[in-house]
Amino acid sequence: MPVRLDVRDAGFAAGFEALLHAKREASEDVQTLVAGVIDQVRTRGDDALIDYTARWDRLTLTADTLRIGRDEIDAATAKCSAETLEALDLAAARIEEFHRRQIPEVTDYRDAAGVRLGARWTPVGAVGLYVPGGTASYPSSVLMNALPAKVAGVERVVMVVPTPDGAINPLVLAAAKRCGIDEIYRIGGAQAVAALAHGTATIRPVDKIVGPGNAFVAAAKRQVYGLVGIDSIAGPSEILVVADGQNDPAWIAMDLLSQAEHDTSAQSILITDDAAFADAVAAAVDKHLETLPRTAIAGESWREHGAIVLVGDLLADAPALVDRLAPEHLELAVEDPDALAARIRNAGAIFLGRYTPEAIGDYVAGPNHVLPTARSARFSSGLNVLDFMKRTTFVACDAQSLQAIGPAAVTLAMAEGLEAHARSVAQRLPGYNGL
Amino acid sequence: MPVRLDVRDAGFAAGFEALLHAKREASEDVQTLVAGVIDQVRTRGDDALIDYTARWDRLTLTADTLRIGRDEIDAATAKCSAETLEALDLAAARIEEFHRRQIPEVTDYRDAAGVRLGARWTPVGAVGLYVPGGTASYPSSVLMNALPAKVAGVERVVMVVPTPDGAINPLVLAAAKRCGIDEIYRIGGAQAVAALAHGTATIRPVDKIVGPGNAFVAAAKRQVYGLVGIDSIAGPSEILVVADGQNDPAWIAMDLLSQAEHDTSAQSILITDDAAFADAVAAAVDKHLETLPRTAIAGESWREHGAIVLVGDLLADAPALVDRLAPEHLELAVEDPDALAARIRNAGAIFLGRYTPEAIGDYVAGPNHVLPTARSARFSSGLNVLDFMKRTTFVACDAQSLQAIGPAAVTLAMAEGLEAHARSVAQRLPGYNGL
Repeated sequence: MPVRLDVRDAGFAAGFEALLHAKREASEDVQTLVAGVIDQVRTRGDDALIDYTARWDRLTLTADTLRIGRDEIDAATAKCSAETLEALDLAAARIEEFHRRQIPEVTDYRDAAGVRLGARWTPVGAVGLYVPGGTASYPSSVLMNALPAKVAGVERVVMVVPTPDGAINPLVLAAAKRCGIDEIYRIGGAQAVAALAHGTATIRPVDKIVGPGNAFVAAAKRQVYGLVGIDSIAGPSEILVVADGQNDPAWIAMDLLSQAEHDTSAQSILITDDAAFADAVAAAVDKHLETLPRTAIAGESWREHGAIVLVGDLLADAPALVDRLAPEHLELAVEDPDALAARIRNAGAIFLGRYTPEAIGDYVAGPNHVLPTARSARFSSGLNVLDFMKRTTFVACDAQSLQAIGPAAVTLAMAEGLEAHARSVAQRLPGYNGL
Repeated sequence: MPVRLDVRDAGFAAGFEALLHAKREASEDVQTLVAGVIDQVRTRGDDALIDYTARWDRLTLTADTLRIGRDEIDAATAKCSAETLEALDLAAARIEEFHRRQIPEVTDYRDAAGVRLGARWTPVGAVGLYVPGGTASYPSSVLMNALPAKVAGVERVVMVVPTPDGAINPLVLAAAKRCGIDEIYRIGGAQAVAALAHGTATIRPVDKIVGPGNAFVAAAKRQVYGLVGIDSIAGPSEILVVADGQNDPAWIAMDLLSQAEHDTSAQSILITDDAAFADAVAAAVDKHLETLPRTAIAGESWREHGAIVLVGDLLADAPALVDRLAPEHLELAVEDPDALAARIRNAGAIFLGRYTPEAIGDYVAGPNHVLPTARSARFSSGLNVLDFMKRTTFVACDAQSLQAIGPAAVTLAMAEGLEAHARSVAQRLPGYNGL
């Protein structure tokens, strides 16, 4: 059964603390294995990729067939239904539109001292996108990872996707095509990450690697970090629904299950001020579980990690709890969701009102569905255009403005014992004759 | 002697590649030791802090004296000269002014489908700032790390600084005071990072930890990453000067040395189109080294890691080399620096023209001096206000707009085999009677 807590109970603080810090994922120690794979790819290049793919994906490749050809991408797209391709296109267009509004502007101004100052943003040169194979091969994730990079102006977006036994989800290739990606390699695992980071004879290295993956992929990303940039390592999905008693319990129950069905480690939490409604939601969850195809996964997630938290007053009590949970997805199914949202600091994405189920954001709303998990919304943001750009500041002094601000720099440099710093500025000031 | 390369030589490509990938830092393996320290602080709290500080900083503390009192901060400030405090104040005011322009705006709009969409930024709740002790205890770094957090609106900024044998640089405390920081603990090393991340009876935990440190501090930051956010791990300083023959060689030589004096692992590189000028700069470096107090450090850095690269034409040849080096600091000492800057993609900060020595940016220009090193300017940015904020997206549909975009979400969810996602949306559409 999911945990049930009431803010008015004596044991609440301890129970909530336990909920906050419960481990949901076993961390596999794959460091050593992954380090070996990276080393092999670094030294043996394509040959290592071919060997690992034969061993783990049961697929025989050559340097010439590592890449998925344009004809293959077109053929896969032709296999998808018109309805699905239209839905994909609507999703892509909406994601592009939302993300385009995030392109930052140049700052360039001259201040009172006459110093010209500013900052500009430029796209990362080349980005690698990891797409998992098998059941977690989601076309929607291709859109969510690739489109912000494209909107940012990244010139080269490369995709890697394992094709165990040669199988690939055609809609994944269709999604790549919709994003304008035509450099795709049929490799996965730590070896694919290593190839993107170090390059091989066939695959040129990239500057940054993004996209979800299993424990091997995550470990490989951590190990190549520094040589290339990486996105944050995503944990199991989470949803926190704050709902009053005026909702249809069946709706809220399905919203909770929509994240629970991802993974047995996923977490769904309901905060409500209505005990009878809480009971009704719990009953509706059990009822939905009878008919959902992924009932085994969703059921285990709900029983092991689910929680229902009762509070006295939503507006007064919920925000502090939400901020401590810092959920990936926050659904506010209340009459005035804006009033509640205004009091909340920590959440990856907020879904406002009774007609905004979280799942709409997974596909077509427009904002990104790659969001901070495991309470990291306290300090980090969902994937966005700025993740594919970097900021360069600039300064320009002339003789006069350097004279205005330079002496203070000389003073501070000398106070820090850095005389070359001091002289580098002082030598450009009038009357310099050594320090 | 520094490496000398000419773009027109046969061996250039190989030589430049070697320059790019030369290791400058020995990586100490301190993982296990640091893991033990973190574990002790997590389980024994203040007692562990007190024990480690006695052992490594030769300082006896109690839970009551861990924190540096306001009186002590005031007394330290009173010890600083008026000239230094004024310089500090000018620097702080300029850093604040530059960073204030970066505060992002809320996005909030309704699109053609009637969906309300947007994103808002909120400050991180609590930030810990690590300040090294001893010789690398730089007041300017206190300003550069703390002020963006304050500008972002972070409510609680905590500082930790080791005070070996009880000694502390008074100007560091004066800088903290100028930044409005009054929660300061006299602890350092991995134990201080652990205390910030996990909290102790005396020190409440923070959400993000920033600031430079030695190998132990860096390893501790990596290990607590996930539980809290961290900034990027900074490597040794770098400067790349692109200069034509019209500069004073003594000026450019001192600019190169201003970074070389930081650390024997620092790297200073000159790109020029004038061989005679290159010779003159090399001679001026040697001359300056005769009189600089930190000549041993700067000289070793220049000899071991310095480089002079000759090119045929600066505007045509330099940008590609700069982008591959992706320097932390880029000085463009040429007649038309803007034309050159426009062709460059990768640099942490750019210093434009003959009167903008890089050192002005270390102290008073305004932009941050915490910048990406080791070629990471290819994919990352200098410290800025957004590092202390996080972005929450939001979506609001009503019954009608959900009807407009919902069916596409249902289609995609079903294509991905996620039926609870599909039903979560579909149940809110008119005429829903199961999928």
